[in-house]
Amino acid sequence: MGIEATQAIIWRGSYLQLLDQRLLPLETKYLDLLSAAAVAKAITDMVVRGAPAIGISAAYGVAMAARARFQESPRQWLNLIQEDLEVLARARPTAVNLMWAIERIRRLLPTLTGNPFAAVVAEAERIHAEDVAANRRMGDFGASLISSGSGVLTHCNAGALATGGYGTALGVIRSANTAGKLTEVFADETRPWLQGARLTAWELLADHIPVTLIAEGAASHLMKLGKIAWVIVGSDRIAANGDVANKIGTYNLAVTARYHGVKFMVAAPTSTVDMAMPNGDQIPIEERDPEELLCAGGKRIAAKGAKAWNPVFDVTPASLVDAIVTERGIVEAPTVEKMTAMMKSGG
Amino acid sequence: MGIEATQAIIWRGSYLQLLDQRLLPLETKYLDLLSAAAVAKAITDMVVRGAPAIGISAAYGVAMAARARFQESPRQWLNLIQEDLEVLARARPTAVNLMWAIERIRRLLPTLTGNPFAAVVAEAERIHAEDVAANRRMGDFGASLISSGSGVLTHCNAGALATGGYGTALGVIRSANTAGKLTEVFADETRPWLQGARLTAWELLADHIPVTLIAEGAASHLMKLGKIAWVIVGSDRIAANGDVANKIGTYNLAVTARYHGVKFMVAAPTSTVDMAMPNGDQIPIEERDPEELLCAGGKRIAAKGAKAWNPVFDVTPASLVDAIVTERGIVEAPTVEKMTAMMKSGG
Repeated sequence: MGIEATQAIIWRGSYLQLLDQRLLPLETKYLDLLSAAAVAKAITDMVVRGAPAIGISAAYGVAMAARARFQESPRQWLNLIQEDLEVLARARPTAVNLMWAIERIRRLLPTLTGNPFAAVVAEAERIHAEDVAANRRMGDFGASLISSGSGVLTHCNAGALATGGYGTALGVIRSANTAGKLTEVFADETRPWLQGARLTAWELLADHIPVTLIAEGAASHLMKLGKIAWVIVGSDRIAANGDVANKIGTYNLAVTARYHGVKFMVAAPTSTVDMAMPNGDQIPIEERDPEELLCAGGKRIAAKGAKAWNPVFDVTPASLVDAIVTERGIVEAPTVEKMTAMMKSGG
Repeated sequence: MGIEATQAIIWRGSYLQLLDQRLLPLETKYLDLLSAAAVAKAITDMVVRGAPAIGISAAYGVAMAARARFQESPRQWLNLIQEDLEVLARARPTAVNLMWAIERIRRLLPTLTGNPFAAVVAEAERIHAEDVAANRRMGDFGASLISSGSGVLTHCNAGALATGGYGTALGVIRSANTAGKLTEVFADETRPWLQGARLTAWELLADHIPVTLIAEGAASHLMKLGKIAWVIVGSDRIAANGDVANKIGTYNLAVTARYHGVKFMVAAPTSTVDMAMPNGDQIPIEERDPEELLCAGGKRIAAKGAKAWNPVFDVTPASLVDAIVTERGIVEAPTVEKMTAMMKSGG
């Protein structure tokens, strides 16, 4: 029920509907996207966000591009569509799932004959369904790490809204909650975009999972009081050595968790793992408009003339990560050897 | 010039004017306070905030109480005024400067004969002037610790707005800036009340000190990039062993600064030091209305039904503090012995 209530991505047979996450929780409104360019813009503008969700959305975008380009030229469509793939891939830089989904379909395209639309839709639907299945498996793996009677803290929104459904970090929290293991779920509000306050609280409440919001500044105070055993987050890209790019503020939490003896878990599908990236130093960190910081709740808050620096991701070194959980299993204290073995395993 | 522009507390001979800091930076409006009760309410409602500033405001509040109680009963005023002192002392719990200022005047009152008003006003004005002088001395002490070519990060607003003038942490930054030592000043926005975005940016810009706002979540990322050498904050209460209560989020910064080899400085007058408090564990931590977190920029942001936990201070252990700077000098790596020696020194 909660999951249906938080369906962020709906394929309508011929077009894509995206829940406009910019308006949540005050308004629940779906936008109809009819082209790859519209999907790319929706990704850039954060109508849809979350690494797996933007990968899935882009896959449906490729399907609409395949239809349009085949209509334009049944003989040249495979050349013409390359531009659409580039536009989609450039929509946001940090999450590798976007490139992963596009590459997966790019490899499929030359094998298709006739109108490619149905086959690409089918592939996008497989990516979507696999993501939900992966999240359910991750949820169980992650929950198995959590002792009964634990409090947890999550950051940003790594839930159904950020994925095909069920969520990564929130999938772990859902599974742990179903298992009756959780005393309390804390979500920090996650400035500047307030994903925690706007999205995570909304999504968990829809699932009847009680959640308490905190300011990001309160995390260390919360940990010192002994209220949480785990910080659980998602990821936008995991390097081969286990360095983790995720929403700005994640690295703060990893540092403070380690200081307090609180464990730090990253839940993400293998589509988030970029084995071509040896470590996190090369992961491109998106910087967004300073206006996101100079305003809050749609209102200007900072003085005229104030500048802001708005990097929206950071990189947590593998040394601060206690466990990376994918659909293929659990990697504790990640290293390149353990990550390689996990990626090669059948799952 | 900048300092005059950010005068938060103005005694008008017979009443108190406070700059309404809830409206900054969009509106610069002074409120007239005509009684101790009105001053207490203004402190509770955060018209005025900042440990030294609420102490000074309370002192002027006592002066108005002395006038009113003497008018009410020239013989009983000293008994009657005790209730006003209690109301003022209870206005906010964490900052000890409030109690310090009230106690200082409480000890004066029995020595007064005739109408006490002028003498109490004179004492409040001394408290106010001493605070400004202390801040200027602290500024120079603190700046002496900073190497040329340093970037600094501050939290909340520990500036002219939070004090009698010049500021504590921002006093150090003003002095270091005047000395040409600073490459860049970063201010985090400081949820939920956004003192950094609303007040610090405004105050520094008025002084022509360039400032860059960041989300609190970006602090570790900033430190990892090597952009700052010092975190500089104020305090609401310093325990005898050097534990530091300050705005929620301070403790996060101290933990992450230590992890990155960034130094952590606390600038506060001796009126902030509570030698009766052996360590920080007993400092009362104010919790404010969850609505401060459920809303941003005056607009509801969290889902209906969402809960929030809103402690507005935290305690940084002395072990994470590199220097406490008061008007009497610098205490590096604070201990109870060093704090006792500093408090006993003439300054």
